[in-house]
Amino acid sequence: MSDEQADAVSRRSLLRMIGTVAGSSAMYGAMTELGFAKESGYDGPPKLGNPRPGTSVLILGAGIAGMVAALELRDAGYKVQILEYNNRPGGRNWSLYGGDTYTELGGATQQIKFDPGQYFNPGPWRVPHHHYGILHYINRLNVQVEPFTQVNYNAYLHSTTAFGGKPKRFREVMADFQGHVAELLAKTTQQSALDQSVSKEDREMLLEALRRWGTLDENMRYVKGRNSARNRGAISDEGGGIHSEPEYAEPDTLSQVLSSGLWRSVGNGQNYESQTPIFQPKGGMGMIGKAFGKELGNIIQYNAKVIDIHQDDKGVTATYVDTEKGGQPRKASADWCVCTIPATILSQIPMNVSGKMKTAINQLPYSSSIKVGLQMKRRFWEQDDRIFGGMSYTDQPNAQIGYPQWDYFSKGKGVLLGAYTFNAEAYRYASKSPEERIQATLDYGEKIHPGNYRSNYECGVAVAWHRVPFTLGCGGSWTEEGRKNHYDNLCALDGRIVLAGEHASRLPEWQEGSVTSATDAITRLHARVMSA
Amino acid sequence: MSDEQADAVSRRSLLRMIGTVAGSSAMYGAMTELGFAKESGYDGPPKLGNPRPGTSVLILGAGIAGMVAALELRDAGYKVQILEYNNRPGGRNWSLYGGDTYTELGGATQQIKFDPGQYFNPGPWRVPHHHYGILHYINRLNVQVEPFTQVNYNAYLHSTTAFGGKPKRFREVMADFQGHVAELLAKTTQQSALDQSVSKEDREMLLEALRRWGTLDENMRYVKGRNSARNRGAISDEGGGIHSEPEYAEPDTLSQVLSSGLWRSVGNGQNYESQTPIFQPKGGMGMIGKAFGKELGNIIQYNAKVIDIHQDDKGVTATYVDTEKGGQPRKASADWCVCTIPATILSQIPMNVSGKMKTAINQLPYSSSIKVGLQMKRRFWEQDDRIFGGMSYTDQPNAQIGYPQWDYFSKGKGVLLGAYTFNAEAYRYASKSPEERIQATLDYGEKIHPGNYRSNYECGVAVAWHRVPFTLGCGGSWTEEGRKNHYDNLCALDGRIVLAGEHASRLPEWQEGSVTSATDAITRLHARVMSA
Repeated sequence: MSDEQADAVSRRSLLRMIGTVAGSSAMYGAMTELGFAKESGYDGPPKLGNPRPGTSVLILGAGIAGMVAALELRDAGYKVQILEYNNRPGGRNWSLYGGDTYTELGGATQQIKFDPGQYFNPGPWRVPHHHYGILHYINRLNVQVEPFTQVNYNAYLHSTTAFGGKPKRFREVMADFQGHVAELLAKTTQQSALDQSVSKEDREMLLEALRRWGTLDENMRYVKGRNSARNRGAISDEGGGIHSEPEYAEPDTLSQVLSSGLWRSVGNGQNYESQTPIFQPKGGMGMIGKAFGKELGNIIQYNAKVIDIHQDDKGVTATYVDTEKGGQPRKASADWCVCTIPATILSQIPMNVSGKMKTAINQLPYSSSIKVGLQMKRRFWEQDDRIFGGMSYTDQPNAQIGYPQWDYFSKGKGVLLGAYTFNAEAYRYASKSPEERIQATLDYGEKIHPGNYRSNYECGVAVAWHRVPFTLGCGGSWTEEGRKNHYDNLCALDGRIVLAGEHASRLPEWQEGSVTSATDAITRLHARVMSA
Repeated sequence: MSDEQADAVSRRSLLRMIGTVAGSSAMYGAMTELGFAKESGYDGPPKLGNPRPGTSVLILGAGIAGMVAALELRDAGYKVQILEYNNRPGGRNWSLYGGDTYTELGGATQQIKFDPGQYFNPGPWRVPHHHYGILHYINRLNVQVEPFTQVNYNAYLHSTTAFGGKPKRFREVMADFQGHVAELLAKTTQQSALDQSVSKEDREMLLEALRRWGTLDENMRYVKGRNSARNRGAISDEGGGIHSEPEYAEPDTLSQVLSSGLWRSVGNGQNYESQTPIFQPKGGMGMIGKAFGKELGNIIQYNAKVIDIHQDDKGVTATYVDTEKGGQPRKASADWCVCTIPATILSQIPMNVSGKMKTAINQLPYSSSIKVGLQMKRRFWEQDDRIFGGMSYTDQPNAQIGYPQWDYFSKGKGVLLGAYTFNAEAYRYASKSPEERIQATLDYGEKIHPGNYRSNYECGVAVAWHRVPFTLGCGGSWTEEGRKNHYDNLCALDGRIVLAGEHASRLPEWQEGSVTSATDAITRLHARVMSA
């Protein structure tokens, strides 16, 4: 067992332990913590000069990375061809609409029966404002965007074992956590316990800051009343005219907030990749892939399953089968190759690259996740629960409910994200048939929206990423050790082949990782071409 | 000097003191704190039965309160007429477009020269998700809404006296404040200083919660590195491929955050009325007033300046002059009257109501505020500063810059909110001519967006609410004492007259106050009618 394997195992064990103790949403939180922050180092599209006329590049995969590479190389004057396994562009950039069909590994086929205008994003669903790379192409390709609500203060935080299983509003838990933290720190500040850490000059300012931020009263206490209601809200709100006084609620104690586990969601929306503003393409994330596909036209050859990649000192040849028309394997050749096939698949395809790159490909673990989409007859979460967009979180296996972030106040239907959960829980979830997954998801949702969830359900779809044939996982899940030993080997130009994709970036599982990886890969490839 | 006057004066002195010490944005913050939380007690439109046929109600003012009253009374079967001072519906619900003209008290006239598609809201600009009353009418009248970004983590916090006058990003200040607070509390928790407040069982959970929420490292320290970057962001972000490591920044110290005063903005977006989701009508807040006006048609008589209100045991008569056509004063009569004229104006109009109501009207102070709109040639805040919507805050007199919350990524123009400031600062601001106000606003903005602000400026408008002829102030600014002594007297049905508007609510200066006030007023009026 190598060091990095040991590390990966112990990391997994840690996650499993956290998952056991605290449920899957805690585990996802822990995942995020052990990983890297997800920022982008994008500084504009690559400025490639022109290669010698006729210089050709074969690109494997028409996901975001492959299509960014194709677009930029084509614009620079390269002869470009893409082989794509699916019958559509986008890869994991993908939205499902009524009439679509999806067959997962194992053969289960789902017919999507959503109404016109409804859709579901099984993969990425949001674009942080600082993901400048993907935003560059969104704008270049005239994809329309709208704001995405990451934090809905009126959405629910739910624990099956706390508060009698009754969900709390996000704002209540946030206000109570901050209030108690502020009160505790104010107390120790006043008791001079912090005299070595906080100067006399700062003391009064700190107390005033804590009072405001923690909504404390004039005695620096976080208690029921007008002050705590400033963030927490009231049982009944203020109104107009006579008898319009509010009724205040008793905050929960710090002990209740802590033992409920709901505190884990308090920082939602504060981490860099979740900070407002965030955007989504109107009509589905898949609009980006479609726009790329339209722009690239017949540069992309669909239904092409690559079964062998071979390079020599003259060029690169990919052997592929046409999954639609069948027949004998065909060949596509070019001077150079950008390969964006996920490591999960690529590790199974013969390819003559260095041992180092092979090892890098083979060692890379992929995360898994499952998403379940549920079409509901009416928007009960808006009409009955007053939740417009954003997410509720639960310690049940579905982990969260995402509310549609468009057509607010519509009197029509809506598609909920009924489950979005990772790794161990995702594997457990996906051990069932798609229909059983949906039924379980409805059970979990019924705990949060009792009386409405099952009764309004019409149709759904469940996508478990480790069963998605074109990727067999959600994305590259680098360990710290793995990155140290193998990342540069994965990214290095190997003869005439360079890899690209989210897995070849420090922003794995984000489209921005695909863009910045592709930009970097073709910049290095172009330099090699020009110096050849 | 009455108690409440003394109270108001001392409150004003306090605010002035805070303003002097800490700049105007601190003062606005303090204002909010001394006031009430702004929630809504709305529980659906009033269910009025039918009155005796022919029963009539005269409504004074076609703002939100007057038009809600008219709509509901009309639907219940009343004969309804509205007299409105302006030549348009909406009152303070108002958007300015190119081609509009606005003349303030004192005679200064501004020609609005915005391009088509551009607009500016001099009054309200957002609708919290829990303002169910105004949202009810937005939906009933099919006004289209879109999300409003209250907090932009990438927008600026700026102090002229801290950090060399260089703005900080909101996320940096928030992360540093939370990080240091978490570290301090963790330290005292570990030192057993809190043993009386935090049980042994809660201790470990509290530490874990502080570590995550405060982005502390494994030693519970808030320091430069991967952990603090989770909320704070990095100097250069991570990217794809080779050489894609991030560069981390040194956090500011707690002392720096406190002495800068920037901590005052850390809780932005957490108070109930600013919690996501928030909405705005597409195309301008004035779309609501327009939709009401269209629905009510010729029920509204425009350009009608009320100069006398008289009731007897038969009915109510308002005397008014036609400000457009001129001529002799005219009279409008009805069985009952709902008067939504702001107290600032109403106190100057003869009206035979009880002394108690008179006193209530006369004692009510109105806040003032000023808003400045600036059309810019290009969206430099998006293209150069990467700020899409939300607000930057400054300790300069303009207090904040609001970025347009629509047409993100547009290559065209945009209208900034260049100043939004209250009370003392608003009076000082408005002592200048509109053009001088705009010039000052450009100077302030230049400090935050140097090189771009003046050079991209095309045209603007400055609306100081205490100079707006139809309201002479921003809204009812109740003191605690004033509300105790006079609020019920203001709202009570007086003979055949009842008052309504934001000033007759516990949500002053919010449209929701107008709706809930009108709903309550007509419900009580109707009960009186039915029992008469």
